[in-house]
Amino acid sequence: MALAGRLVNLGTETAFAVSLAAADWAAKGNRVYPFHLGDINLPTPANIAEAMNQAIAEGKTGYCPAAGIAPLREALADDVSRRRGLAYGPANVVVQPGGKPVITKFIQTVMDPGQSVLYPNPGYPIYESQIEYFGGRSLAYRYEETPTGFAIDLDHLHSLITPTTRAIIYNNLQNPLGCESSPEEMAAVAEIAIEHDLWVLADEAYFEMRYAGTSTSIASLPGMAERTVILYTFSKKFAMTGWRLGAAIGPVAVAEAIAKLNTNDESCTTHFVQAAGVAGITGPPDGPAAILAELQRRRDAAWSELATIPGVVCPRPDATFYLFPNVTAVTRRMGFDDVTAFADAALHATGVSFCTRKHFGRPQPGEIGHFVRFAYSGLDVDAIGEGLAALRSWIEAG
Amino acid sequence: MALAGRLVNLGTETAFAVSLAAADWAAKGNRVYPFHLGDINLPTPANIAEAMNQAIAEGKTGYCPAAGIAPLREALADDVSRRRGLAYGPANVVVQPGGKPVITKFIQTVMDPGQSVLYPNPGYPIYESQIEYFGGRSLAYRYEETPTGFAIDLDHLHSLITPTTRAIIYNNLQNPLGCESSPEEMAAVAEIAIEHDLWVLADEAYFEMRYAGTSTSIASLPGMAERTVILYTFSKKFAMTGWRLGAAIGPVAVAEAIAKLNTNDESCTTHFVQAAGVAGITGPPDGPAAILAELQRRRDAAWSELATIPGVVCPRPDATFYLFPNVTAVTRRMGFDDVTAFADAALHATGVSFCTRKHFGRPQPGEIGHFVRFAYSGLDVDAIGEGLAALRSWIEAG
Repeated sequence: MALAGRLVNLGTETAFAVSLAAADWAAKGNRVYPFHLGDINLPTPANIAEAMNQAIAEGKTGYCPAAGIAPLREALADDVSRRRGLAYGPANVVVQPGGKPVITKFIQTVMDPGQSVLYPNPGYPIYESQIEYFGGRSLAYRYEETPTGFAIDLDHLHSLITPTTRAIIYNNLQNPLGCESSPEEMAAVAEIAIEHDLWVLADEAYFEMRYAGTSTSIASLPGMAERTVILYTFSKKFAMTGWRLGAAIGPVAVAEAIAKLNTNDESCTTHFVQAAGVAGITGPPDGPAAILAELQRRRDAAWSELATIPGVVCPRPDATFYLFPNVTAVTRRMGFDDVTAFADAALHATGVSFCTRKHFGRPQPGEIGHFVRFAYSGLDVDAIGEGLAALRSWIEAG
Repeated sequence: MALAGRLVNLGTETAFAVSLAAADWAAKGNRVYPFHLGDINLPTPANIAEAMNQAIAEGKTGYCPAAGIAPLREALADDVSRRRGLAYGPANVVVQPGGKPVITKFIQTVMDPGQSVLYPNPGYPIYESQIEYFGGRSLAYRYEETPTGFAIDLDHLHSLITPTTRAIIYNNLQNPLGCESSPEEMAAVAEIAIEHDLWVLADEAYFEMRYAGTSTSIASLPGMAERTVILYTFSKKFAMTGWRLGAAIGPVAVAEAIAKLNTNDESCTTHFVQAAGVAGITGPPDGPAAILAELQRRRDAAWSELATIPGVVCPRPDATFYLFPNVTAVTRRMGFDDVTAFADAALHATGVSFCTRKHFGRPQPGEIGHFVRFAYSGLDVDAIGEGLAALRSWIEAG
């Protein structure tokens, strides 16, 4: 009984292999410092669970509309519009079981087989997986190291566009790089999208996860709202990763198509979880502020330790919860040709578990540097300090 | 900005138009009796929500494995095996956000473009939608009226099979028909599947929703477990339609492919809802028993009223929560050529809202009878009696 041939084109998140290795190492009685996981080990603000229970008590345990309950679509339209200087209404909002479903539904909605979509590399691996799975050509655009972080190689991005290109996936406040576009870079991406009449998926999962400065949405630039779909998620701001609540926000025609996909794929997003989401958005800001403050303490703890290890070059991002240090000098000095071997050795020598650049797309031609990703959202400040001190000792002794 | 051409092949549940018409009529101040909705207006058993809150208190608000949490996969494997005389283990179980996602994921896993899949008609409209959307040929197999209900036209089903056929979708305890296979019919379907080496999706959403007799799974027949994927849902038994919790249960290779689709599509099913599901399955049977007893009272109330309306031919199913009467004589006598016009007139004359045969697939060539579907799960016994008495008066006067 053979399975469908289409599955050959389906990718995955190879980072799960890192989780497995870490779990194996822990099962053998070793202390593990889980810097590999983009999850948050903080409780969801209490008012959100209270609103959920209130909704259950009110009988909100039955089906609800495929596009989401009206109060949540209204609350999201208001909140997202206010923070981005836009004017979305409820008809622009389609609720999803998480931010991730927006990726596949955007691709299904704008791309046909044989067409191409540009996506960031290093970047979230599901972009490439879904473009290829739905018969498209996935074209990876590069980033360059800068003195303060990373920048899109705009010439490279531009060079990838052909008459069959339909969309650009743009993840400002980037996972795994932690970087953010300058106003000029964002304007250049928008200009390219307009010039070639492309759709844009603005993956704004980390839009409000920042410790300084203000986020700008590419959807806010002139001519962009009509071609942009925003990926919104409750996962980070409200520490709700396991609740599975997000939304696609964009032009009404796209929202309607995505709602029809909802009807086919999952009927609706968990009814009372949507009511909880309304409480999150419209409730007091204390909960999200406390989460963000704690993440900033962790960012500071992780960065100050990592950036001072000899041979590690580590920009300090003002957003996301990732650090993406260049460890080329360290791996060379320690005799590792391969960054995977370096990560494996680090786990077994120190218990520090992290992903490498290879978990975020195929390395590009000519790429010679070694990079790794540290997620600091799943460890408290003490564990961060302890783990990275052990890593430092190992590297310094190596 | 055009959308993808693939969307042209995406169907939907046209029954939502009935919901809209009913809501419109109610908004004008009219009493509506919602027999169109396959939803349940009963509370979820309290131990389930309690287990969910316990899980949240324990911090189960982060990501969990794509295939589902281990305790739920174990509980489902045990429970489904015991009720079907099978021997599934956790590796056979992939948790889903509802039963519906099993349909699209099964089709993606076993069917490539250009291949055909057989599906029941009348039947749940998402089968046809997903077969066509993923580039397959959807081949509808017919049912025949019998003295006690409906039976699959096995000759017709067999005649549809070609060398490109990959699967049969089989919905015993059928929505909308309410019917169930005789042992001979089920054996014949299994024999055809084995003879032609086909996959089978066993949509067992109503497996435990029965008032007499015992359910049998086609997966239990010799040679079938290795080619069958069971659609399991918490929606009906535990009155959890809006919770969105279900599972695909089948051969390990299929389960693994579906888990990879989970990783791409939604990461995981809501973490603490899975913990609640464990409590449902392993907890006291009182809650589900009370739900079933109440549904039986409603079945009896609805059937005794409907079946005695002159011109209405209504079998009494022992399972599901649907009645599928033949109203041909009534529509003829009242002068309706079209069953949709009959349903519209009934809504506006009596407030009784119901779906018609047309909401469950394109009528087959030569089909001349008029059928409608009454779902009795969303109204209490008094409302059922009141609504159907009004319908009777209108029909008798017509």
